[in-house]
Amino acid sequence: MLILSGGVTQNEVKSRVFLHPVQLRWGECDPAGIIFYPTYFQWFDAAAWNMFAQVGYHAKRMRAEHLAMPLVAAGCEFKHPAEQEDRAEVRSRIARWGGKSFVLAHDVVRVDGTLLATGSETRVWGRYENGPGTPLRGQPIGEALKALFRA
Amino acid sequence: MLILSGGVTQNEVKSRVFLHPVQLRWGECDPAGIIFYPTYFQWFDAAAWNMFAQVGYHAKRMRAEHLAMPLVAAGCEFKHPAEQEDRAEVRSRIARWGGKSFVLAHDVVRVDGTLLATGSETRVWGRYENGPGTPLRGQPIGEALKALFRA
Amino acid sequence: MLILSGGVTQNEVKSRVFLHPVQLRWGECDPAGIIFYPTYFQWFDAAAWNMFAQVGYHAKRMRAEHLAMPLVAAGCEFKHPAEQEDRAEVRSRIARWGGKSFVLAHDVVRVDGTLLATGSETRVWGRYENGPGTPLRGQPIGEALKALFRA
Amino acid sequence: MLILSGGVTQNEVKSRVFLHPVQLRWGECDPAGIIFYPTYFQWFDAAAWNMFAQVGYHAKRMRAEHLAMPLVAAGCEFKHPAEQEDRAEVRSRIARWGGKSFVLAHDVVRVDGTLLATGSETRVWGRYENGPGTPLRGQPIGEALKALFRA
Repeated sequence: MLILSGGVTQNEVKSRVFLHPVQLRWGECDPAGIIFYPTYFQWFDAAAWNMFAQVGYHAKRMRAEHLAMPLVAAGCEFKHPAEQEDRAEVRSRIARWGGKSFVLAHDVVRVDGTLLATGSETRVWGRYENGPGTPLRGQPIGEALKALFRA
Repeated sequence: MLILSGGVTQNEVKSRVFLHPVQLRWGECDPAGIIFYPTYFQWFDAAAWNMFAQVGYHAKRMRAEHLAMPLVAAGCEFKHPAEQEDRAEVRSRIARWGGKSFVLAHDVVRVDGTLLATGSETRVWGRYENGPGTPLRGQPIGEALKALFRA
Repeated sequence: MLILSGGVTQNEVKSRVFLHPVQLRWGECDPAGIIFYPTYFQWFDAAAWNMFAQVGYHAKRMRAEHLAMPLVAAGCEFKHPAEQEDRAEVRSRIARWGGKSFVLAHDVVRVDGTLLATGSETRVWGRYENGPGTPLRGQPIGEALKALFRA
Repeated sequence: MLILSGGVTQNEVKSRVFLHPVQLRWGECDPAGIIFYPTYFQWFDAAAWNMFAQVGYHAKRMRAEHLAMPLVAAGCEFKHPAEQEDRAEVRSRIARWGGKSFVLAHDVVRVDGTLLATGSETRVWGRYENGPGTPLRGQPIGEALKALFRA
């Protein structure tokens, strides 16, 4: 079983690119003095929520409409070590739309242009049947949703 | 570019399987009431250090010998949502030895036998040239090291 | 305004002491090679949930009965630096019962007996009026609940 | 033993107030849908490093000069629950200078002016005797350092 990672080369989707600025904190570094790698996934998740907020699906709306986007898979390649205080931006786009799932591609680029990491998340577009805490069911991804992310 | 994930099917290495028990905390869950996914990578990292400690490479020794095992890539497939208080174990093994790098495969299995997640980490076996904070250089992985993990 | 911290000396309550084992991970240490201090609060929170689970208030029951125990205040004194792989236990007890709130005292003691940190959490005993996501209202703490924690 | 918390009322020091913007992430919230409280301490730590960076003690310089500012104590009062996507700023100042230690006061204020939390950190101003990983020794805090933070 293979996970498509950073270099999602066949970008089937003409996606907008969304930017999410980050700065590496002391507490996100490990004793080697560089980024503790799960931090990248925390950034990916924050960037994913930011993408949806940018197109109108703010956290409050997601909650009100019982929407969620749980993960199926995630992967990352680490290209260059990030150090405390480094500023970077997560550049995110839709890499692929499936019937009820989608793939996000994320590049983490330091302000000087260095690619720090590149990864992807595969998520389901889902709805809680009876509100938070109840089972989640995948929802068909319609054209209206896709259009919001088109470049 | 592809990352080998959970189902590393061609287990070239006859590896011991190492067990690392975990229990999902309140603070590791998100507003959907299930595990926030970077937690799996935190568990993978802890399990990796546990593997090396089990064969004699304790944290103290790693530090004293200026050894480190930074990540090249990591990936995970999420199979079943984990909930607060769930007990599981991370079952880890060497999936492949390269010249200066290696791949770990991790399965997260709940106490009732449910596979929660399966993933992999690709790491370099490295040494700080002049102690912590100085550049890290990949080290050839010798037979002695490999032997420690053999089933 | 003062927060009672570790040395909650007037232990008005004859409380059981609850033990929660922890081991410091690589990713919970900072570039100084010691514990990143918010980790102690993550341990306190996990220890608090463990206390309630031990007396029958498991996570599942808390959810089912719409109970929660949000924080009013928390404090910690850091006595000795913890290093990666250190094993310790969080020793927790009820330090004080209020009408609708209570204070937990937590000591983090390394296996060799060294006190690493000592702190406290002040929490409300609350119930979501209409399930998760709805407003939380403080509940009177009855004798039955208090009795569960009595030494 | 008492920890001075948020309401450090006797502000002996005429300190500049430093601002550190934050936004609450999905993964920093718990199943109750509000901020998981150790997040505040992660913000305090980031805000502390930001203060020092603002006056010239950037992370790189701290490392180069073997400086560190480990914690002696920390405390926080939680005033209002923060929700995902909330934007706030941590307003930080020097509350007190000791001989080799100092107290920072942090207020977390949501963009609409709501005080979310107020807390403090007591830190030592220290230097690694022989670089990272070696013992840390408290350094006398001179007038030059104090002057950098004066309002």
